[in-house]
Amino acid sequence: MQITVKQAGELLLAHDNIVLLAHQKPDGDTLGSSFALLYGLEQLGKTVRVECCDGFPERYAFLYGDYSPKAFAPEYVVTADVADLQLLGNLQELYGHRVDLCIDHHISNRLPAANTLLDTSAAATAQIVCGLLKEMGVVADKAIANAIFTGLSTDTGCFKYENVTPETHRYAADMIEAGAEHGRINKLMFDTMSKGRLEVDKLVTDTLEYYCNGECAVITIAEDLPRKYGVTDEEMDGISAKPRRIQGVKAGVTIREKGNGVFRISLRSGDGVDASRICCEFGGGGHKNAAGCTLTGTLEMVKAKVVEEVEKELERVGQA
Amino acid sequence: MQITVKQAGELLLAHDNIVLLAHQKPDGDTLGSSFALLYGLEQLGKTVRVECCDGFPERYAFLYGDYSPKAFAPEYVVTADVADLQLLGNLQELYGHRVDLCIDHHISNRLPAANTLLDTSAAATAQIVCGLLKEMGVVADKAIANAIFTGLSTDTGCFKYENVTPETHRYAADMIEAGAEHGRINKLMFDTMSKGRLEVDKLVTDTLEYYCNGECAVITIAEDLPRKYGVTDEEMDGISAKPRRIQGVKAGVTIREKGNGVFRISLRSGDGVDASRICCEFGGGGHKNAAGCTLTGTLEMVKAKVVEEVEKELERVGQA
Repeated sequence: MQITVKQAGELLLAHDNIVLLAHQKPDGDTLGSSFALLYGLEQLGKTVRVECCDGFPERYAFLYGDYSPKAFAPEYVVTADVADLQLLGNLQELYGHRVDLCIDHHISNRLPAANTLLDTSAAATAQIVCGLLKEMGVVADKAIANAIFTGLSTDTGCFKYENVTPETHRYAADMIEAGAEHGRINKLMFDTMSKGRLEVDKLVTDTLEYYCNGECAVITIAEDLPRKYGVTDEEMDGISAKPRRIQGVKAGVTIREKGNGVFRISLRSGDGVDASRICCEFGGGGHKNAAGCTLTGTLEMVKAKVVEEVEKELERVGQA
Repeated sequence: MQITVKQAGELLLAHDNIVLLAHQKPDGDTLGSSFALLYGLEQLGKTVRVECCDGFPERYAFLYGDYSPKAFAPEYVVTADVADLQLLGNLQELYGHRVDLCIDHHISNRLPAANTLLDTSAAATAQIVCGLLKEMGVVADKAIANAIFTGLSTDTGCFKYENVTPETHRYAADMIEAGAEHGRINKLMFDTMSKGRLEVDKLVTDTLEYYCNGECAVITIAEDLPRKYGVTDEEMDGISAKPRRIQGVKAGVTIREKGNGVFRISLRSGDGVDASRICCEFGGGGHKNAAGCTLTGTLEMVKAKVVEEVEKELERVGQA
């Protein structure tokens, strides 16, 4: 059932021993949302823990500090920024059938839950959580402010993307006032590149190809590349954003070789081009301007298939 | 005389035939501030024009459109984001002695003016102008919103830098509500790289060398490179920021070959390393975290000299 922020607040206030679930390969928004909720609900005297099928990346250590999860029997299960059961990874078995409250902003959300607080107009799940905490009377302290700010900032490319709303900026202002270390967080998230990442960036840029009169750009990431240079999945995300940044490119495709003929496609788009529409054709999904899917075959086959769908979408947009 | 926003508003309301001056090599803040004032004052029925010693860059065309300056005898002269008379270029002779109102946010401001509205806590001059227009009762339309938003966004690295205040975000929210095309502007300012810029970036990155246990990174830009790929000076600035972005690098050096044995050094630093201190050794100067100087000799000589000074500074900081 779709519920309002007010109703979600009432539900959380009425429950205790709450487990918050972040999605696999946790990013700034799922972690920021989960930890903001944790700190906020603890402020209200609740017993809470955050769980994730994957470890919390070092890069977000400023956000979770020396966190260690409390042991208790879960009474209420909440997901934050999890669009799909699969994204719970191996926690799916334990919690997949009993999600009480799903908080998310993905248009592709299809996570089964007793109650769903979905706001697809929110730039980040942290934006929804910020309103929710306010609704519950939580006063943002520095830890909450850093967590919310990280979600807002990371899911918007540092307030750069189209998905930013006036509310995103207003909440960012509130969080800075509440003590968010915005300069430090942004420097860490957006202005720091490992030496390995720089090498990989160079090698990947060498694979760049243009299609559809330069409106589609494709880069390919060889299977062993990230591991060879010690580059994390998250760092690779920044590289995936690169093709779309090139002047005139409306659809930027990153093909990542996963081995055994499996390829993970990441698609970034703009100028009306619907990335999720293209990825849905291959059983994937995501947002309008950032989506993904998985294909199998040879690199050339996969590339041709994706470019073909991109071309169709470019034509559709051109005719609209 | 230092005046308040209220006083500045009263002065502008009391005058007409206003000339607004932007600084040389105009950027998003000086242009955004000037044009927001132009549109706002025109809304109030005033006769206004914007002047700049240099042409308006194509890149900001969305902001000034098909603007053509009105001819009239100036009665009131206002500078926007101009910290120093020299920055008026060849307009200095005409207007340098008769600036009525200086609106700026630079801590280094030393422009002589009858009245100065200086707010060094503002992230951008556009932030001051936004408050000033509000004070004068101007309702931001789309043109004003785009101009203010551009100033806010470009002077903060898209809301990334430490200089951002809650007010920066709140005005950005207001401007989006007033119709600012934030996604389009940010994409244009921060997420668009010409195909030539991408090539230059790759070639320059190939020259990257590490010194001082990886705490100093040096890139070299060959003399003909920017011209060969049609890359502007402004685009090259982004490349100079790159070495310092690498993890562990405290001093990022860009050596730009100018021909005839002349090399322009740009130094970006952090973690306590004083870039201006290093550049002063060679007769240059600048800010603590961004400075420059000019050296002559062979590339290898120049590089060795700069790295030597960087090493001394790293040692000094290490001992501090």
